[in-house]
Amino acid sequence: MLEWTRGQAVGEIDTPALILDIAAAERNIRAMADRLIHGSVRLRPHVKTHKCPLLAHKQMAAGAIGVTAAKLGEAEVMIRAGIPEVLVSTPIVGRTKIDRLLALSRHAIVLTVVDDVGAARAISDAATRVGQKIPVLVDVDVGQRRTGVLPGEPALALARQVATMPGLVLVGLQGYEGHLQHVQSRDEREAHWRASMEKLTDTADLIRGAGFPLDIVSTGGTGTSTFALEAPGITEIQPGSYVVMDDHYGTVQGVGFEQALFVLTTVVSRTRTTDVIVDAGMKALSSDSGPPRVRGIEGAQYVFAGDEHGRIEFADQGSNLRVGDRVLLVPSHCDTTINLHDHYHVIEDDRLVEVWPISARGRIR
Amino acid sequence: MLEWTRGQAVGEIDTPALILDIAAAERNIRAMADRLIHGSVRLRPHVKTHKCPLLAHKQMAAGAIGVTAAKLGEAEVMIRAGIPEVLVSTPIVGRTKIDRLLALSRHAIVLTVVDDVGAARAISDAATRVGQKIPVLVDVDVGQRRTGVLPGEPALALARQVATMPGLVLVGLQGYEGHLQHVQSRDEREAHWRASMEKLTDTADLIRGAGFPLDIVSTGGTGTSTFALEAPGITEIQPGSYVVMDDHYGTVQGVGFEQALFVLTTVVSRTRTTDVIVDAGMKALSSDSGPPRVRGIEGAQYVFAGDEHGRIEFADQGSNLRVGDRVLLVPSHCDTTINLHDHYHVIEDDRLVEVWPISARGRIR
Ligand SMILES: Cc1ncc(COP(=O)(O)O)c(C=O)c1O
Ligand SMILES: Cc1ncc(COP(=O)(O)O)c(C=O)c1O
Repeated sequence: MLEWTRGQAVGEIDTPALILDIAAAERNIRAMADRLIHGSVRLRPHVKTHKCPLLAHKQMAAGAIGVTAAKLGEAEVMIRAGIPEVLVSTPIVGRTKIDRLLALSRHAIVLTVVDDVGAARAISDAATRVGQKIPVLVDVDVGQRRTGVLPGEPALALARQVATMPGLVLVGLQGYEGHLQHVQSRDEREAHWRASMEKLTDTADLIRGAGFPLDIVSTGGTGTSTFALEAPGITEIQPGSYVVMDDHYGTVQGVGFEQALFVLTTVVSRTRTTDVIVDAGMKALSSDSGPPRVRGIEGAQYVFAGDEHGRIEFADQGSNLRVGDRVLLVPSHCDTTINLHDHYHVIEDDRLVEVWPISARGRIR
Repeated sequence: MLEWTRGQAVGEIDTPALILDIAAAERNIRAMADRLIHGSVRLRPHVKTHKCPLLAHKQMAAGAIGVTAAKLGEAEVMIRAGIPEVLVSTPIVGRTKIDRLLALSRHAIVLTVVDDVGAARAISDAATRVGQKIPVLVDVDVGQRRTGVLPGEPALALARQVATMPGLVLVGLQGYEGHLQHVQSRDEREAHWRASMEKLTDTADLIRGAGFPLDIVSTGGTGTSTFALEAPGITEIQPGSYVVMDDHYGTVQGVGFEQALFVLTTVVSRTRTTDVIVDAGMKALSSDSGPPRVRGIEGAQYVFAGDEHGRIEFADQGSNLRVGDRVLLVPSHCDTTINLHDHYHVIEDDRLVEVWPISARGRIR
């Protein structure tokens, strides 16, 4: 249904439209790979951000060892598009999902995480019945208070149990420090990160010491990827946002990637001197991390004005924006904004060169 | 890709899942129609909430005169599904959209709104070229500070211009009082509403007095539908949320519809005594109006824990929720939550009876 023409100028694209500056995204993909090239930490980028197999393949081509997915549904999309190895970073619970995991595991390497003995046993039992073995990481809570067992003894206790389950293979630990990614100050972020990582690597040592080999210690997002080269004991990181970035990450010191994602919007109403109304609201831009930033208009502020509209308020009433004009917005949160759109409008040199489906959008199961 | 079985118990549906209690929705559809049955105000319900042609047809069967849509994309979905008349309640700007409007207008009655002379002229010019006439309402700002010209003289001035445009037919006014829908106190809401409606109906009188007949004066949402029967000068209302409701509307006095929409989620982690982690986060529940409400667990609070997770915190640590258990959540905002999902899981007597595509989800253009 989407109408577009290759070579259209950005200003001619129908709006609201999600815009991907592919050259910037490719530079980001390269920059993250370069960051790791001299160390032993490998890259398993999280596709929950971009949700697009083509971008995942570009990450693989740049040296990723596989990808990370938040949900089985995302993993299915990636594997059907030829990605050979996916870590599902959230616990898989319930019979329907376990059956999907087993079906998928016949066609690619699918790793997952466990933090509960009963949930682990359910996977093991189902896998055993069909003669499969699922590689799992024990999920460790390194301070985020989300999923994961506590570091140290509780993690060891779960690892011991997992090691006895015939349908599972204990391959490592996951400890995602999501609470640290957006700590603004580089030094503060690094100090917290070192403390968190010590919990994780100490736990890995404890488990290894008890006789269970662990190949993988997986952690890390875009905000802490800065430190990944100096991370003894960490074997891989799983950053997601770096490919496209967002305005929230733009405020975090020392992250160092380029903004590649925008929402293009049109002025649809101007009845006051102080503001205009644009056609992108809460159905085109996520609001969980605040409003988007207006690009290229000094002092202009975007305010959400319902599901379909935003109000752009001017610092200086002299703005000459008129009905029909286009405005580029920088999303505050990339993952949730991308999740509202069906397509990337891929641009190069300010021209539309491709439209890509966001195939894993809405794969919430 | 969605796996489901007719007759499944709610507790067996894979999660997260958007649940529609169809009996409650049908009672809401009936209740709104009953509310209007003895007056002269007609019903043109807004489909931006449910985004589902089948629900729109149920509204038509209950006596609606047509539907309202926020975007042309929604109107296209409705018209292709046989809805004969759609009001697009936001200004249509830009050549691509005008071409779509003209194409659509050959197959159904499509009304739209204008608040800008240039934008109106662009539609008129394009319509004239193909020998069409588009019915339009002048959009009036009754206090929301979104789209719309000011009431009184500015509205009259625009109406005069529109009346001279050969490709347009001036048929009425729209004045949506979105800023009043959630005023908690019934009395306060009513007082503000009377003042707003006076502006709108006075403007209609002014324009009619200047020699321009106006058939339609369209306004109203779920929150102000309480007063619609006693609304001289208003010809129709366009409420949306009432079909399914949400927790935000649940706090508004005197609205009087039933909650018919839920998000079903599964406990995927329980490593602390104080809370559990469920599998519905910001990709399954909108956060613009705050967190969802936990149904049926006294004192339990939902806290967003990222895109894929929520944390349910207990007042009383004795909760016996375990990994694998299901929890029903009441979304805080129906429109934006529905917009995250591809399907309604339609339930009756706690059994899954149908799965309906949310066909206009993501139709943001
Ligand atoms: C488990 C896990 N790993 C990695 C990431 C990627 O983090 P970022 O997008 O900040 O790079 C996320 C993001 O939420 C995550 O949940
Ligand atoms: C123009 C317009 N009319 C009607 C409605 C319906 O309002 P509600 O969902 O509160 O009933 C909306 C909702 O945003 C709207 O924008």
